[in-house]
Amino acid sequence: MKFCSDCAHELEQKIPKGDTYMRYCCPNCNRIFYQNPAVVVGCMPIYEDKVLLCKRAIEPKVGKWTLPAGFMENGECVEEGAMRETFEEAHANVEIENLFTVFSVTNVNYVYMIFKAKLLDLNFKSGIESLDVKLFSKDEIPWDDLAFLSVKHCLKKYFNDDPKTHEKTSMGTFRLDNSKKELETNL
Amino acid sequence: MKFCSDCAHELEQKIPKGDTYMRYCCPNCNRIFYQNPAVVVGCMPIYEDKVLLCKRAIEPKVGKWTLPAGFMENGECVEEGAMRETFEEAHANVEIENLFTVFSVTNVNYVYMIFKAKLLDLNFKSGIESLDVKLFSKDEIPWDDLAFLSVKHCLKKYFNDDPKTHEKTSMGTFRLDNSKKELETNL
Repeated sequence: MKFCSDCAHELEQKIPKGDTYMRYCCPNCNRIFYQNPAVVVGCMPIYEDKVLLCKRAIEPKVGKWTLPAGFMENGECVEEGAMRETFEEAHANVEIENLFTVFSVTNVNYVYMIFKAKLLDLNFKSGIESLDVKLFSKDEIPWDDLAFLSVKHCLKKYFNDDPKTHEKTSMGTFRLDNSKKELETNL
Repeated sequence: MKFCSDCAHELEQKIPKGDTYMRYCCPNCNRIFYQNPAVVVGCMPIYEDKVLLCKRAIEPKVGKWTLPAGFMENGECVEEGAMRETFEEAHANVEIENLFTVFSVTNVNYVYMIFKAKLLDLNFKSGIESLDVKLFSKDEIPWDDLAFLSVKHCLKKYFNDDPKTHEKTSMGTFRLDNSKKELETNL
């Protein structure tokens, strides 16, 4: 971020009056550019005892398995975003049940919100961002080939925890450890 | 948004290849500028049978009462953001209990996440963005002087719903109605 998107003047970094954080500020038109976490919304589609996963066709983690999810768009609510991403990536028709997990991923500034959802039919197929889409029972989950730690924790919670706890939203944080190379979590 | 923040070239609006939404795109350096909803995090601090509210010192809704909340910052998790905002606005020390409400406010592109929290002491006082901070029992809540519909729904849920339901995260959406002037909700 180098230039003001309103007037094209060069930006400077400073703490604005009344603020406590460094921000990109325009000394010409005085606009302040706040940078905030993005919301990633998605679903864990369940059919009988199986969960639907997508094999990623795009970076990062091409070829690894994930839950259908992506960035929430302006103008939609979280549930609409989760259903839209599930359709885009897996052409899957789902009915949202409840907010299953909210994970903060502080190194990339994401808030990752996954809904437990009922897969309504078997007409799913790969969307443009997926190489494959498949249903997996607990024993079939490719645990060593999951794309993200957040996906692993979501699936572990679903398959290992008492189903009575599934209605309660599970919270967690992923952040870089002291080596700054590995993610650690409070889960 | 008129200029590229990376190279200062004038932006154009188009649907990038493989995308379905109009985006601001730079024809010079090819950067795409995505615009996504922001996360507002806060607490509903509870002390005995009372809830802590802040009288707003800043626009919008100066002089109206609200729950302490504000924009989540990069580098923090949702709980840290909620506690930071509660301290900034009300100098209140809280212990977070659970995620109480997640409201999408589609006309302003906010995801509003409020935690039920235990107010740990009575050493609260107005922060720079508050004119006053006070504890209110159900009968004392200034229902007609609340800043936002989302705050009203959060307080109604707390005071009117069976306490057994308080552990489950409540979801809702606020969007402009057909007149484009009033907010409507599915709550």
